[in-house]
Amino acid sequence: MNNAKNAVILTSGGLDSTTVLAIAREQGYRLHSLSFAYGQRHEFELTAARKVAAAMEVERHLVLTIDMGQIGGSALTDEIAVPKARSLAAMEAEIPVTYVPARNTIFLSYALAWAEVLPACDIFIGVNAVDYSGYPDCRPEFIAAYEKMANLATKAGVTGKAPLKIHTPLMTLSKAEIIRRGVSLKVDYGMTHSCYDPDGAGLACGACDSCLLRHQGFVDAGVPDPTAYQAGVRFG
Amino acid sequence: MNNAKNAVILTSGGLDSTTVLAIAREQGYRLHSLSFAYGQRHEFELTAARKVAAAMEVERHLVLTIDMGQIGGSALTDEIAVPKARSLAAMEAEIPVTYVPARNTIFLSYALAWAEVLPACDIFIGVNAVDYSGYPDCRPEFIAAYEKMANLATKAGVTGKAPLKIHTPLMTLSKAEIIRRGVSLKVDYGMTHSCYDPDGAGLACGACDSCLLRHQGFVDAGVPDPTAYQAGVRFG
Repeated sequence: MNNAKNAVILTSGGLDSTTVLAIAREQGYRLHSLSFAYGQRHEFELTAARKVAAAMEVERHLVLTIDMGQIGGSALTDEIAVPKARSLAAMEAEIPVTYVPARNTIFLSYALAWAEVLPACDIFIGVNAVDYSGYPDCRPEFIAAYEKMANLATKAGVTGKAPLKIHTPLMTLSKAEIIRRGVSLKVDYGMTHSCYDPDGAGLACGACDSCLLRHQGFVDAGVPDPTAYQAGVRFG
Repeated sequence: MNNAKNAVILTSGGLDSTTVLAIAREQGYRLHSLSFAYGQRHEFELTAARKVAAAMEVERHLVLTIDMGQIGGSALTDEIAVPKARSLAAMEAEIPVTYVPARNTIFLSYALAWAEVLPACDIFIGVNAVDYSGYPDCRPEFIAAYEKMANLATKAGVTGKAPLKIHTPLMTLSKAEIIRRGVSLKVDYGMTHSCYDPDGAGLACGACDSCLLRHQGFVDAGVPDPTAYQAGVRFG
């Protein structure tokens, strides 16, 4: 593995970014996974990200604390009720409770900083233009513009000797396709966390937007859902 | 002032960003100044940024803590000697001790987040392509690419209703021209801090790269240097 190229992979402990990590591993990269503590209401995501990083045998897993609370604009750290049992249309009509202003821009900027130090020319991010189509910073145009900017931000990029590439292997996949890809790469999705509103033991509520999209993905993929739900959770 | 447009101004407590703040004030913006605590070896920069913000009567001054230490690559938090009494050529041949990987990219990303929340369509940054020409992320091409990316990252930018603009009023000015501009706007540069290696009272060393460039700027501008230097500092 010493000849492997370094890659920085943005990971959240969720289903999508865990699949991305497995894809980068399959491609032979030396893995550097990067997660953020930004005042999440619970720690289960970060715990899942650490477990996943260990299971994937990453070279290094970093958790950076980012200080969004003062800027405001995110419901994540506030006491706003998590919407439950919404339709897909209702989800798409609103900004999700997990929204952090300029989130992907900030996350990618730290990934760029780490890539510059390692060095690495490859950054992976699990953005997806299918399931959450309302998000400007999940679209291919945004990623292309970010990549261009990043290559003007660093000496290696400017000289063209080591151009930076942002990989978005999930961009055009449905949730079911993401799950099937992960299963083919032997991802243990039982290790991942997606729920916005887990109980004290980290069990998923089965009713928030994230749980509903995730469960439907398993149904559509024809894969048993390995998620640990709270007692009494039933799906339609 | 209630009809004034919001602007986010990146400030460090130094000479350049203080001048930028004065320029944004002159242009009638409602000022929101943003500084970063990223493990600087001393607190005088942040103290200066707070003083300057108060003097300029900003609407709000934010200091965000950013967690660069784990990523590494910056000499700022390490115990590396600050070079002294170097020639301009020697300064330009090396990466300065204050270098933070992907610094302007990260700083601008937080400014973008704050701009999205306020909302604001105007971000000011004191980059300059003249004095430190070796820096990719101080060039007009970088700023233009950042602005394009930022407008793809946010809904307001995508719809074209409120395009974001990144202002770089110092881009083509020499240090002397910056100082003359600031003096015309009644900036009190005695309030600003530039030294990389101040003593315990915050007095400037007069010998680090930053002190030398700053002092030469005052000399070239024909403006008395108001910097409080340590006892015994003499300039050639």
